[in-house]
Amino acid sequence: MTSAPVRIGLLGCGNVGAALVGLLADRSDDIEARTGLRLELTRVAVRDVAKVRDVALPEGVLVDDAAAVVADPDVDVVVELIGGIEPARSLVLDALKAGKPVVTGNKALLADHGAELYAAADTAGVDLLFEAAVAGGIPLIRPLRESLVGEPVARVMGIVNGTTNYILTRMSEAGASYADALAEAQSLGYAEADPTADVEGYDAGAKAAIIASIAFGVNVVSSDVYHEGISKVTADDITYAHRLGYEVKLLAIAEQGPDGRVGVRVHPAMLPKAHPLATVREAFNAVFVEGDSVGQLMFYGRGAGGDPTASAVLGDLIDAASNLRSGTHASIGRLPRAELSPLDDVRCEYYLNLEVADKPGVLHAVAGVFAEHGVSIRSMEQEGMGDEARLVFITHDATEASMKATLRDLDGLDAVDRITSVIRVVGE
Amino acid sequence: MTSAPVRIGLLGCGNVGAALVGLLADRSDDIEARTGLRLELTRVAVRDVAKVRDVALPEGVLVDDAAAVVADPDVDVVVELIGGIEPARSLVLDALKAGKPVVTGNKALLADHGAELYAAADTAGVDLLFEAAVAGGIPLIRPLRESLVGEPVARVMGIVNGTTNYILTRMSEAGASYADALAEAQSLGYAEADPTADVEGYDAGAKAAIIASIAFGVNVVSSDVYHEGISKVTADDITYAHRLGYEVKLLAIAEQGPDGRVGVRVHPAMLPKAHPLATVREAFNAVFVEGDSVGQLMFYGRGAGGDPTASAVLGDLIDAASNLRSGTHASIGRLPRAELSPLDDVRCEYYLNLEVADKPGVLHAVAGVFAEHGVSIRSMEQEGMGDEARLVFITHDATEASMKATLRDLDGLDAVDRITSVIRVVGE
Repeated sequence: MTSAPVRIGLLGCGNVGAALVGLLADRSDDIEARTGLRLELTRVAVRDVAKVRDVALPEGVLVDDAAAVVADPDVDVVVELIGGIEPARSLVLDALKAGKPVVTGNKALLADHGAELYAAADTAGVDLLFEAAVAGGIPLIRPLRESLVGEPVARVMGIVNGTTNYILTRMSEAGASYADALAEAQSLGYAEADPTADVEGYDAGAKAAIIASIAFGVNVVSSDVYHEGISKVTADDITYAHRLGYEVKLLAIAEQGPDGRVGVRVHPAMLPKAHPLATVREAFNAVFVEGDSVGQLMFYGRGAGGDPTASAVLGDLIDAASNLRSGTHASIGRLPRAELSPLDDVRCEYYLNLEVADKPGVLHAVAGVFAEHGVSIRSMEQEGMGDEARLVFITHDATEASMKATLRDLDGLDAVDRITSVIRVVGE
Repeated sequence: MTSAPVRIGLLGCGNVGAALVGLLADRSDDIEARTGLRLELTRVAVRDVAKVRDVALPEGVLVDDAAAVVADPDVDVVVELIGGIEPARSLVLDALKAGKPVVTGNKALLADHGAELYAAADTAGVDLLFEAAVAGGIPLIRPLRESLVGEPVARVMGIVNGTTNYILTRMSEAGASYADALAEAQSLGYAEADPTADVEGYDAGAKAAIIASIAFGVNVVSSDVYHEGISKVTADDITYAHRLGYEVKLLAIAEQGPDGRVGVRVHPAMLPKAHPLATVREAFNAVFVEGDSVGQLMFYGRGAGGDPTASAVLGDLIDAASNLRSGTHASIGRLPRAELSPLDDVRCEYYLNLEVADKPGVLHAVAGVFAEHGVSIRSMEQEGMGDEARLVFITHDATEASMKATLRDLDGLDAVDRITSVIRVVGE
């Protein structure tokens, strides 16, 4: 089978871009044998052409003008791996307007401007594919878009940040403190010098916004996502979690209620040890999907890294090339703005750890506050004595609103010295 | 968006067929809103039209002539859920020849006649989709065919039989004997009255043949698959497995070596407890894929049941309908016959449990047999005394051939009363 090659213009040649260049060099012959499609990398736009790179490219491929690559008549498909909002957004829009399919791994861009870009792709009648933007190499967006297009999805729950999962794994398995586990993750290159985006849940929040948009067919942006990070999780919390039969994970949760309203949040959670997500270790990612008839599904793999992410880009690239040749495309269409459900209405169980005065009547006073706000207690343990006395509770299902009120009143109680930890319990 | 409906002819209305009829009734409006495709069930062929069924169908839809449904000009897409080889094979071939896309969940048919059917679909230029044939509702075939089409896959390893996984879970978690766990699975409807196809690995073997064909792009049939069931796994084996840090699972393993040769086998295996497959419980399925650049992936979910399987059929149906409308199709093409690697060449570690005479020199004699065949020992425990004495070994990596020779010679040793168990250890 011989036909004209599909000519690729790559924007950005960092970690993932360089891995993609390598994969294209290694596999183009096999891909052609298997699919009849010849993928040819004709242009690679980088900021600094003079920079020494670990990629072998023919003379003339490396250029410094990304806009010119998008406009180049010798480029059929654009791969955007620049990251960030601008100029990535304008370049992607220009490519789509020019009728060129786009493959992107740009999480920030899709989380904030996804609906605009999906609509532009729809108008232009070309593909906009982005498997690499969420959960790296794991096929997730394609199964959601295609396999589950006829399946009402009630909830998607995922571990979508490898850095925090690595830190929590070290805390769980080696008994490390948060600070030590973070330092270890930094020394291994799993965490940045400034780890805020990972450990405070911003990265997971952006991915959750994209997942929610695709799973529910409505436009959710990063600022719609409630997020809480892992920096307050203590070694003690992990010890209690184990004793109670849980693991602590940073979860991204997207839910759609029967009323159509959507809630998306990122926070640490205690998960029963037998839950499939509880067994996801180190820097791996996994996304758990609950469908109406298909039941529980989970997709697991490497959520980051040059090679896994480039593999996802390559899969999309073959798809885009194939669709371009056959004159079809996949469309997400125009997403209506999501109607959001308030966080206050979310129900779950809670783990609470309180430092209390060691004297008669404390439990009575504390239990009174729970009762007043309609929060019932599933289990309680008293630990330590004197200044070390603590009460550890797991509640039954309660709303965020009633838990917030409970915490406010507990804080005002003489018998309570400090509320050490509050962690949601999910997945029972 | 209004266009002519895509008219579906369903062959077979058992468990999955009835669930599909229900899903189409419930979701057709939503699917039309989301995709612009109107799916309309125009014919359902069953053996006995008079039989009372729990499905609501308009007058005239239910008929008893499957061949007439395939030939019916009012049928655009055929869904084959009859099962078995004939008449399913002829009906599918006839539909493809007539230019009608086919969606099937027929594992036995694809495991033995897949290559013929894929080639017929390729010749006709129409879709043959079969997500439901392997691992029920789990999106697996589509990710393998599409997301990973550019990714060399070295190994696929899966828990693809829910019955045996349920039995092994009960043995592991409740300490049940094989016989009791089987009886429980039968009483819950997870196992058939004659459980042979499940417990002896035939069902998993057929699925493994299909997975290997798609993952490696070569034709593998059921009879190429080595299989060994779980009926010899004892409560003792599970106890030793736990003590050594393993779970026992029935695994389907498909591997392709650097020489291109393919090995496919089904057997019980000890997996490290931290391996993602080790945590798959009860009747769930999961398939673990090792790709060259994407690394480890796992797909997890319900491998059987009417609703999950019908959900997979529906996903395929929407895809086939969409491709039919846009005049495209996905093709597996013509698969060359697989070159098979002999089982004797496979390398893994082994767990061995021997009943031995309790006297000096026994370990010396046994260790001599291992040494003679170049099998080195990773760990050894002696258990019990007198008539109850046993030696439990975990070996290092060894070939099947050298292990076979070792077992033959151990069996001939005076000091060895009986080889109680031999279980492969994988996934380290």
